[in-house]
Amino acid sequence: MMNDQAYMDAALDLAKAVQGQTSPNPPVGAVIVQNGAIVGFGAHMKAGEAHAEVHAIAMAGEKAHGATIYVTLEPCSHFGKTPPCADAIIKSGIGRVVIAAMDKNPKVAGKGVERLQQANITVESGVGKKAADELYRPFFHFTETKTPYVTVKSATSLDGKTATVTGESKWITGEEARLDVHQYRNANDAILVGVNTVLADDPKLTVRLPNGGRNPLRIILDTHLRIPPEANVVTDGEAETWIFTGNNVLSEKLDLFTNNPEVTILQLENNYIDIDQVLGYLGENRIMTLFVEGGAAINGSFLMAKAVNQLVTYMAPKLIGGESAPTSFAGLGIASIDDAINLSMKSVEMLGNDLKIISIPKEVK
Amino acid sequence: MMNDQAYMDAALDLAKAVQGQTSPNPPVGAVIVQNGAIVGFGAHMKAGEAHAEVHAIAMAGEKAHGATIYVTLEPCSHFGKTPPCADAIIKSGIGRVVIAAMDKNPKVAGKGVERLQQANITVESGVGKKAADELYRPFFHFTETKTPYVTVKSATSLDGKTATVTGESKWITGEEARLDVHQYRNANDAILVGVNTVLADDPKLTVRLPNGGRNPLRIILDTHLRIPPEANVVTDGEAETWIFTGNNVLSEKLDLFTNNPEVTILQLENNYIDIDQVLGYLGENRIMTLFVEGGAAINGSFLMAKAVNQLVTYMAPKLIGGESAPTSFAGLGIASIDDAINLSMKSVEMLGNDLKIISIPKEVK
Repeated sequence: MMNDQAYMDAALDLAKAVQGQTSPNPPVGAVIVQNGAIVGFGAHMKAGEAHAEVHAIAMAGEKAHGATIYVTLEPCSHFGKTPPCADAIIKSGIGRVVIAAMDKNPKVAGKGVERLQQANITVESGVGKKAADELYRPFFHFTETKTPYVTVKSATSLDGKTATVTGESKWITGEEARLDVHQYRNANDAILVGVNTVLADDPKLTVRLPNGGRNPLRIILDTHLRIPPEANVVTDGEAETWIFTGNNVLSEKLDLFTNNPEVTILQLENNYIDIDQVLGYLGENRIMTLFVEGGAAINGSFLMAKAVNQLVTYMAPKLIGGESAPTSFAGLGIASIDDAINLSMKSVEMLGNDLKIISIPKEVK
Repeated sequence: MMNDQAYMDAALDLAKAVQGQTSPNPPVGAVIVQNGAIVGFGAHMKAGEAHAEVHAIAMAGEKAHGATIYVTLEPCSHFGKTPPCADAIIKSGIGRVVIAAMDKNPKVAGKGVERLQQANITVESGVGKKAADELYRPFFHFTETKTPYVTVKSATSLDGKTATVTGESKWITGEEARLDVHQYRNANDAILVGVNTVLADDPKLTVRLPNGGRNPLRIILDTHLRIPPEANVVTDGEAETWIFTGNNVLSEKLDLFTNNPEVTILQLENNYIDIDQVLGYLGENRIMTLFVEGGAAINGSFLMAKAVNQLVTYMAPKLIGGESAPTSFAGLGIASIDDAINLSMKSVEMLGNDLKIISIPKEVK
């Protein structure tokens, strides 16, 4: 017979498997166990559709009576697009609920547990909490700040260069790293680049994975609206594109984009791009996760705004060198080492021939 | 009973333990096994003193008769500072010799094996070859090229910066990484920096380890002899210092250093520092291993000269950013990604909070 941790790990695996396809909802997994045997699995697979608990209860049927349900996030107690999961659990006859992470959404936090306990169901929490808190970091960040969880990607040589002194930058990292980037595009609500990236590479910013995927909303930061009306992200119709500009763009320029339903021009209050304003606007529009593939200037802006929640760094086994060859974070930079952004290393692994490092800034706003 | 590989691993462990203290000789370990039990251990501990096989045979005494000796490098067959090990093995009555790596020194290569076989001793090689070839890379490099094996160190933030935009660079990496650097200083015959490092930090370039250590020869590259006569490396008497200059240094400047027996000024043929000339001169003077702690310009020169044999990179979990903040390899750099120096990743590990990456350029001269 497996223990609580092992069953919760199975529920966490289900949640991780649907990560990126449930926005604006969090990924949740559930496992129901009766007499030492699993009798039901469930995961929330798409916003608006059934929650994890409901799928698992349906699978378990009569066997849910007196069973234990392991669920990665506190069951909801409010009517959203679907009825409250706490009620479904009560109705199923489940006797014990084990929860990994408590919700932080004020509409839910603690209320699901309260409702279950009022129905004389045993509730335990904290099993698998660390893994669940990690899984829900983006969701909790959005819940608490109302701005998207920002993942900044960089791909460099081992000596930190994103391109050579002549600006050549394509294919620094290998195939495995490039596929991994597309997984991140697939898992994030939006992808963001600066107009210089559009001018240099004319990228599509779409998801190209062997089994397809969901294209994120495309966001371009472009103070003076220099983006060409024939750019791929404007014309290809593969996904929506939002272009943030400063406040002094000529109306003739704006007119070039007015007849395109896939493109939205958003003028900010000042004649520059204020990262906080952009993130606030995205949050209001339920963009919960943002993948920044920005280039050095954009990455530098997010760094200086202390708006980086996670950093994904790919490092190719190459040396490029050159005093003027670009690195992944430009802009002003930090003046004193004491003021450098401190990171926690979350994982270091080889991806093909490249190194992949995930790190988390210790202080963000 | 252990197998050949396990006994050879024990011999390799002995060799690794004395790595860095045997120059100009290679580190060698030996284990003697009689009837499934180890009866002798040996390692070559210092140039001019007994070789590994001799120590192990002395320890085994009579038990060497008919035993097997596991030795990490082909036993020598020539009289150097000590008599040939092949003769000592024959005299001891050892019946079987297992060798990890064959020597590449033309004075030895294959001749030790030949001598043993002529005495009817069974010789096998190749057990533990991969680990031994790795261990002897510096030694074989020197044997083949007559120039030192060059290890370049860099210490950067995760975004590849060695200092902030204002030039502040101290304490980027943590205590564990700094101790590790001193291990490398201890294990290399010489340490090299540029004069800018001397002018900026006035370093001692000595070994500061809890249990002491051996100070390497200090080498300063200083085209115009700008080094102050009161610099630590000139005056502290902790180790010898060689200063390489270009060919047009004023004799008044040279005179400032003539009375210092610890300091040697070496003028090159041209009015710039030619890395190949420096390495050739060091090789002629039996400097087999060189640790470059050079700063960006020096590292860049070694990179462009394709004279980097091993790269040790420490990366602190910090972001510094800044377009003009320095990186570890300056100079001209590579123009096209296709021409970038390709590396093999040898190891990636956490050292305290820092990442340590050892990599090997695939093409060197």
